[in-house]
Amino acid sequence: MDYKDIKTELSENILTITLNRPERLNAFTLRMKDEVVHALNYADSTDEVRAVIVTGAGKVFCAGMEMEPEDGGNLFGYDDAEGMDPPLEQIRDSGGELSLAIYQCRKPVIAAINGAAVGVGITMTLPMDIRLVAENSKIGFVFTQRGITPEACSSWFLPRVVGMQKALEWVISGDIFMAEEGVEAGLFHSAHDKGEVLDVARCMARKMIAKSSPIAVALAKQMLWRNPNFSHPAEAHVVESKMIYWSNEFWDGKDGFTAFLEKRAPRFETAMADIPKQFDFWKEPEIE
Amino acid sequence: MDYKDIKTELSENILTITLNRPERLNAFTLRMKDEVVHALNYADSTDEVRAVIVTGAGKVFCAGMEMEPEDGGNLFGYDDAEGMDPPLEQIRDSGGELSLAIYQCRKPVIAAINGAAVGVGITMTLPMDIRLVAENSKIGFVFTQRGITPEACSSWFLPRVVGMQKALEWVISGDIFMAEEGVEAGLFHSAHDKGEVLDVARCMARKMIAKSSPIAVALAKQMLWRNPNFSHPAEAHVVESKMIYWSNEFWDGKDGFTAFLEKRAPRFETAMADIPKQFDFWKEPEIE
Amino acid sequence: MDYKDIKTELSENILTITLNRPERLNAFTLRMKDEVVHALNYADSTDEVRAVIVTGAGKVFCAGMEMEPEDGGNLFGYDDAEGMDPPLEQIRDSGGELSLAIYQCRKPVIAAINGAAVGVGITMTLPMDIRLVAENSKIGFVFTQRGITPEACSSWFLPRVVGMQKALEWVISGDIFMAEEGVEAGLFHSAHDKGEVLDVARCMARKMIAKSSPIAVALAKQMLWRNPNFSHPAEAHVVESKMIYWSNEFWDGKDGFTAFLEKRAPRFETAMADIPKQFDFWKEPEIE
Repeated sequence: MDYKDIKTELSENILTITLNRPERLNAFTLRMKDEVVHALNYADSTDEVRAVIVTGAGKVFCAGMEMEPEDGGNLFGYDDAEGMDPPLEQIRDSGGELSLAIYQCRKPVIAAINGAAVGVGITMTLPMDIRLVAENSKIGFVFTQRGITPEACSSWFLPRVVGMQKALEWVISGDIFMAEEGVEAGLFHSAHDKGEVLDVARCMARKMIAKSSPIAVALAKQMLWRNPNFSHPAEAHVVESKMIYWSNEFWDGKDGFTAFLEKRAPRFETAMADIPKQFDFWKEPEIE
Repeated sequence: MDYKDIKTELSENILTITLNRPERLNAFTLRMKDEVVHALNYADSTDEVRAVIVTGAGKVFCAGMEMEPEDGGNLFGYDDAEGMDPPLEQIRDSGGELSLAIYQCRKPVIAAINGAAVGVGITMTLPMDIRLVAENSKIGFVFTQRGITPEACSSWFLPRVVGMQKALEWVISGDIFMAEEGVEAGLFHSAHDKGEVLDVARCMARKMIAKSSPIAVALAKQMLWRNPNFSHPAEAHVVESKMIYWSNEFWDGKDGFTAFLEKRAPRFETAMADIPKQFDFWKEPEIE
Repeated sequence: MDYKDIKTELSENILTITLNRPERLNAFTLRMKDEVVHALNYADSTDEVRAVIVTGAGKVFCAGMEMEPEDGGNLFGYDDAEGMDPPLEQIRDSGGELSLAIYQCRKPVIAAINGAAVGVGITMTLPMDIRLVAENSKIGFVFTQRGITPEACSSWFLPRVVGMQKALEWVISGDIFMAEEGVEAGLFHSAHDKGEVLDVARCMARKMIAKSSPIAVALAKQMLWRNPNFSHPAEAHVVESKMIYWSNEFWDGKDGFTAFLEKRAPRFETAMADIPKQFDFWKEPEIE
């Protein structure tokens, strides 16, 4: 795929995806969505990519949905939809399609929010594993001020990240707030000098992959996002028992403990292709 | 309905409900429950009310359940119930009936906790969207010290608001703690001078309604409370896709984006009566 | 049962369970798991025990799974398991079996983490109600660095305790971090001088049982862990209505309110044997 609204760079096994419409403050287009999803699918399956960073070109991270048709804006993209109950495929929220792709991606995804992030610009980061932000950035879940409701699966992710009280406060008012308030509420991992956010993200990505098994990370990420939705810990116990048996007997764990006892670095040689892409203890709902 | 245990005031589209039994420290009666539920139902459906504040008359917010029969106390109200398994309708927890009414109310509800809040006095505030508290107020989930279990749906709401460790600590011991500890744990949004809590609440309510669409707020509030209970974000995506389609094509979003592009204030003219009161993607369990 | 890998002490109605393999840094063995489960089952059912403290002998809390076979290590204990899909009973994660026993225990459980807690050494504490930690202790969810996935139901408990962002950060990297970072993230209730952690835990346990009804505590603990997993607060309302009816009419609540009105200490005389061990509104999944 020829990327036009993003650019990507792979180095040190870290794929950096840059939202790349700086002249439009990286406003989100349907094309941008397709391109990021494409890049994430690549990152998910290849062993070359161990972690993903998402950042923005220029001074802001993402100003929200592109609204000017001449600039590729198509708002929600439902040209064909008619009436109150059109087929879902005609009205699927594009931010949500991106969020689900991030949720499905088995590599750690770090948001390096280099400036303002508004609307889909902030909601798209909620399914990412870590959010770093530039000091003094403006942040806003502005949907109610446009007469619309929150999207990009943010109604599902935001309360998980910051708890109910902050989620309600930000979403109901739709007001802009500063990055520092987001740090305090747990929305962001930490705030950094604008010029250093991406470097900190790279440093963190390196730390995440330095000593860990790629396979164990891919599985652990899925377990942390999916297992808490079981209604009883015994259901997580069943998943964990199988995962630890498989990883210890057949995958990277084979050398992990041996190496630890022999006080040497482990050889983690299991490939992404060696593990199942889906597990049937987690239901993936069909969206029709 | 003629209010006796509460009073209400509507100004600037904000309905203030005052628990009004100051001579009894605003202790909770079955009548008070009926009256607050009545006021909330009114607030929910009328376009006149954009936000609700709940506060207490006098020096405390609410000292808990009224226990003196001559003062209207009837504890849990189950005069007719007999045996271990009476019909649920005879033993429904009155605090829970209030909490469910707050949960159903589609307008933002702010607690202006002007003093001590104990037992049902604090648990009734958990389904509210924002909790402001007077400095130095005494707070207590005192149930275990009376030999009974927590109520008002607090076992469902409290862990969502403050996480498991604090919820367990407070509920197990049943001890009184100070408002400041509650702020630190995220129970309260913030603490304020006793004389100013209500003013801050009004200020916050004004901020919440200043620029936002009433309809979008009503829908967003429901989405934030309900969508996280889906076991997969794709289920939230289905709800969000429909909500954003409807709000953007048929409701307040129609003018929201146009106004934004034209750099003017939007005309939000959709009425509460124009949107469905219930949506079938959220199951409301029948309580018999 | 003759304890070998732990020791227990009962005083002031508080059962202290000490992981007792200091020469092996209290590394976790299958025998230790069986012994702690046995002690918890005892604590759960007897009226003599009102609270449980778990701590470690010597300088660390628990260094993780015992891996030396000559020291009783058997890693995951699946000698007989063969192929990718053996019967679950042959591969059940032993940390998870312990976590489920803690989850089932109806008495408050406090972790007095007297030093380093790594791997199962920290994950086993997540189902405990309160975690106190010694200052400067090293903590680590190190699984991915050994090529394996998290266990002891930690994928279910950790996000409930610290939220998603911190859970993901710690588990993905597998890095060691300091106790102080854990306090800030809400993993630990508080950090204390190494020599005082156990004393603080005892003090907290005493506070928890000083004025509360044992029965109400046992029920409240179950409600807080189980009710939030319902998808609607009305389901919690049904449970709470019955619980408060039973506790108020038939159990310790009978004297609780009377005593309060008479301004005297209540007589809490209901025994654990007087209340149901399981309730059918909470499904306990069968693990086969």
